[in-house]
Amino acid sequence: MGNDNGLLLVLSGPSGVGKGTVCSALRQRMKDIVYSVSATTRAPRAGEVNGVNYFFKTRQEFEQMIEQDELLEWAEYVGNYYGTPRRFVEETLASGRDVILEIEVQGAMQVKQKFPQGVFLFLAPPDLTELRNRIVGRGTETEESVRKRLEVAKAEIELMNQYDYVVVNDEIELACKRIEAIITAEHLRKERQIHKFRQWLKEE
Amino acid sequence: MGNDNGLLLVLSGPSGVGKGTVCSALRQRMKDIVYSVSATTRAPRAGEVNGVNYFFKTRQEFEQMIEQDELLEWAEYVGNYYGTPRRFVEETLASGRDVILEIEVQGAMQVKQKFPQGVFLFLAPPDLTELRNRIVGRGTETEESVRKRLEVAKAEIELMNQYDYVVVNDEIELACKRIEAIITAEHLRKERQIHKFRQWLKEE
Repeated sequence: MGNDNGLLLVLSGPSGVGKGTVCSALRQRMKDIVYSVSATTRAPRAGEVNGVNYFFKTRQEFEQMIEQDELLEWAEYVGNYYGTPRRFVEETLASGRDVILEIEVQGAMQVKQKFPQGVFLFLAPPDLTELRNRIVGRGTETEESVRKRLEVAKAEIELMNQYDYVVVNDEIELACKRIEAIITAEHLRKERQIHKFRQWLKEE
Repeated sequence: MGNDNGLLLVLSGPSGVGKGTVCSALRQRMKDIVYSVSATTRAPRAGEVNGVNYFFKTRQEFEQMIEQDELLEWAEYVGNYYGTPRRFVEETLASGRDVILEIEVQGAMQVKQKFPQGVFLFLAPPDLTELRNRIVGRGTETEESVRKRLEVAKAEIELMNQYDYVVVNDEIELACKRIEAIITAEHLRKERQIHKFRQWLKEE
């Protein structure tokens, strides 16, 4: 792919860290970024539009996409498939626009295998106590289930090592500003700039 | 060196591109960054303070610094030595503060040899015509000398490949914002963040 392609930004992090909230706030602030549309086999809900909210697929269609390596990542959840179609991402990047993908850590690691040139952002809690509060704060959880979730969160933090950047989600506004700075900086990387200058050296 | 060390930011680029102007503007905007103090054998001018404007050295002292590898880079210019003392940079970084070094491209490449973990920023002209105008705009140059400078600038742009980032200096305000974004992003790199989280995983 060319150097004028957009960036694939993968925003992930432990469950309960606030990925969805940060992603919604970013969507308000950065109108130019395209949000990846997932494929799913679950039935559309009232008002959901194919190609906007999801690409709605039959199980057979989805399994064919898996076989033909048309998904950057996928998982089965409560009897339905969910995944990220490679074509939508690649076509949007080729048009020069950045794409953001908000995704669980297991999915992010699948994307990294298939699309290592992506920019991988790990959204982290300010501290473990805060994360515990957020997990407990959902209410209705037993102490045992809270403890298990915390163990999972600790394991997920060790996955941090697979990412390019760590963005602490202490305040949504600050987390968004950090992500914006990362996007700006990534566009200024030498690899993405030098070809323009080489071009006008030729023309001079 | 530890992960809580400051960043060494090396701002370089072709002569005439406006490194000094951008660096002065950054100094106004980012009060926390420490500007590297050079060593020189030239005599102090009225009002210049040793250790603030320069570290003033005798030729013998300077040559000893070269021999003992105490300079990140050095050059001789109009009969005087100029260089960047390694100790000042390393001590400032160890205190957790970022250091910025504004320097010609030849010096920047010497720094890269001795301090590859630095963040290397190439300040670039918006286009070659603009660069030509800046070079000619100094006045008093013959056409031949202008043409030679332009050749040098072209060669310097090929050095871009050795840098981490390319920052176009179209407007000083914009160039400063880009550099600030790069500094923010570099601090968020996983390598600089993960040890904090590992630490509090141990404590939990």
